[in-house]
Amino acid sequence: MRKGKCDVAVAGATGAVGREMINMLSANNFPVNELRLLASSRSAGQKLKFKESEIVVEELSPEWIKKNRVDIVLMSAGGAVSLEYAPLFSEKKIYVIDNSSAWRMNPAVPLVVPEINPHDLAVDKYIIANPNCSTIQMVHALAPVHRISKIKRIIVVTFQAVSGAGWKAVKELESQSKKIADGDFRELNLPKNKISVFPHQIAFNCIPQIDVFLENFFTKEEMKMVQETKKILSSEIEVSATCVRVPVFRGHSEAVNVELSDDITKDEIWEALLKEKNISLIDDVSKLRYPMAIDAAGKSATFVGRIRHDESRPKCWWFWIVSDNLLKGAALNAVQIAEELIKII
Amino acid sequence: MRKGKCDVAVAGATGAVGREMINMLSANNFPVNELRLLASSRSAGQKLKFKESEIVVEELSPEWIKKNRVDIVLMSAGGAVSLEYAPLFSEKKIYVIDNSSAWRMNPAVPLVVPEINPHDLAVDKYIIANPNCSTIQMVHALAPVHRISKIKRIIVVTFQAVSGAGWKAVKELESQSKKIADGDFRELNLPKNKISVFPHQIAFNCIPQIDVFLENFFTKEEMKMVQETKKILSSEIEVSATCVRVPVFRGHSEAVNVELSDDITKDEIWEALLKEKNISLIDDVSKLRYPMAIDAAGKSATFVGRIRHDESRPKCWWFWIVSDNLLKGAALNAVQIAEELIKII
Repeated sequence: MRKGKCDVAVAGATGAVGREMINMLSANNFPVNELRLLASSRSAGQKLKFKESEIVVEELSPEWIKKNRVDIVLMSAGGAVSLEYAPLFSEKKIYVIDNSSAWRMNPAVPLVVPEINPHDLAVDKYIIANPNCSTIQMVHALAPVHRISKIKRIIVVTFQAVSGAGWKAVKELESQSKKIADGDFRELNLPKNKISVFPHQIAFNCIPQIDVFLENFFTKEEMKMVQETKKILSSEIEVSATCVRVPVFRGHSEAVNVELSDDITKDEIWEALLKEKNISLIDDVSKLRYPMAIDAAGKSATFVGRIRHDESRPKCWWFWIVSDNLLKGAALNAVQIAEELIKII
Repeated sequence: MRKGKCDVAVAGATGAVGREMINMLSANNFPVNELRLLASSRSAGQKLKFKESEIVVEELSPEWIKKNRVDIVLMSAGGAVSLEYAPLFSEKKIYVIDNSSAWRMNPAVPLVVPEINPHDLAVDKYIIANPNCSTIQMVHALAPVHRISKIKRIIVVTFQAVSGAGWKAVKELESQSKKIADGDFRELNLPKNKISVFPHQIAFNCIPQIDVFLENFFTKEEMKMVQETKKILSSEIEVSATCVRVPVFRGHSEAVNVELSDDITKDEIWEALLKEKNISLIDDVSKLRYPMAIDAAGKSATFVGRIRHDESRPKCWWFWIVSDNLLKGAALNAVQIAEELIKII
């Protein structure tokens, strides 16, 4: 770092999250000295805007890393690329904030939501993991509650937007929706050749599968929520999830049933949430106000509402948590990690 | 009844559920002698098809009930109409199978899912309630499990199709989706004048509100699921729900976390479900097979899949339950009630 400014690289710069990382560096006024954009050879040569300048995308390669030096890399290039390249950066004592799942459960790697566990960052830990989108917004909203009464159990059901699966997924929902709309909705089931990114048609449907299935019959996405929540909040919390893809472009919604350790009131929960950084409480059902994906899209906060006591059991509460999966769920959280990081390096 | 055949009336015949009631009478070969179609004055005079004939819709009025006689009325005309007219029919010892919520929690009124509690029907109980769509499919799928191990607790999150709110709601999702598709998805948030049936935009969004809010901050839909499940399955079951409207035309999906009384195996659960009438088990994640709304639409079964042990707690299981909200969730269940009824009257 020179004069408090960083040389930053975004690796995977042309992807859905990579582009938002560039936007968030600008929107958050992150102290960038020079920004380098990296991607696969396929995308190298493209130009992307950052503030007033256009930056040419360079090819991420071992040679690039040998020849160049930056302070921080924001990486969103998938697990395989991350497993190969993050160690090459870290050997050169370059910090990598990685958006893939490759490093998250590595005990040596901090898994950070800056509002919750910035203290897990350390000068000598060069690889830092950005949690899964559906985990970030949930733990962000629940951490203040956990602080006033330890959470014992979380049951979560997600309504996840297609942009979490990348630009091709966004285009697939667009083209499927357009095809059905152009047919005046007479045929709601599309032929198989209209389906490629998702395992089944996503337009006007709900798919109870995100990522691959594991041996325990849960999906990898569901187990990410379990394991990452335990790592970030507390290993003692019992977590179980059903993750569902819905025909929404941007903004994950989550219905969360939480069992606390104490009898606390709704006022106490509201108070804890109102004090929390980057949490927006939208919880006035008398005016039909609650968080929704179309309102959260493009915003930086995690939105919480529909807070109510689950009358079937003491100490159990429902929450409805919504956030932009590309922002707080990915790019923004990564930039916020970088903001914490530069305080200590 | 004459020679085993009934005179049947469908009240609310022109609505989304009413039309399906007519279809189901035909599809199930219900022994209809004469079919009468009733609706408000606004819809009277319309002609609807039943098997090979066209039937003119008549106006439902106290005069009609005075002058005419049928054996069974299938009613789907909303709570207010039901409260006014069901007693007029029952006074004449005409059976009314009512699809509204008006009578469901009345202790004198049977609330019936024919696979579960047909024995609640009785010769002298002329008003019979058809449960809420989201309740029917859930209890239908869970009843066989409850028989092998008493259910202690149900936590359910729903993904409900717009057709549950009637034809206008279907048209609203169509017109909103078309507007956004015609704009090539550049503008995803529609102006307020495109929103009328639902409190907010439903296209490419999830709305965590179905029906009105009650004093306990739950919606009426959520409390229907609680109260009706207790009435149908067992008052001892703890139930809590979050009900969400999603941009799907037909077919409600439900993620359900169930706590049982005993340690049972997945094989035992499968076996119980495979034996159950009208349940279709679609649970082979190795082939990415699980129930989905677009596959359930137009079908009569309740589809169950993604059955897995919730590893966070003993005796807890996840289910993913999908059914056509207009068929098993409404019209078909009503006709199936009528089928049980004619066995005893």
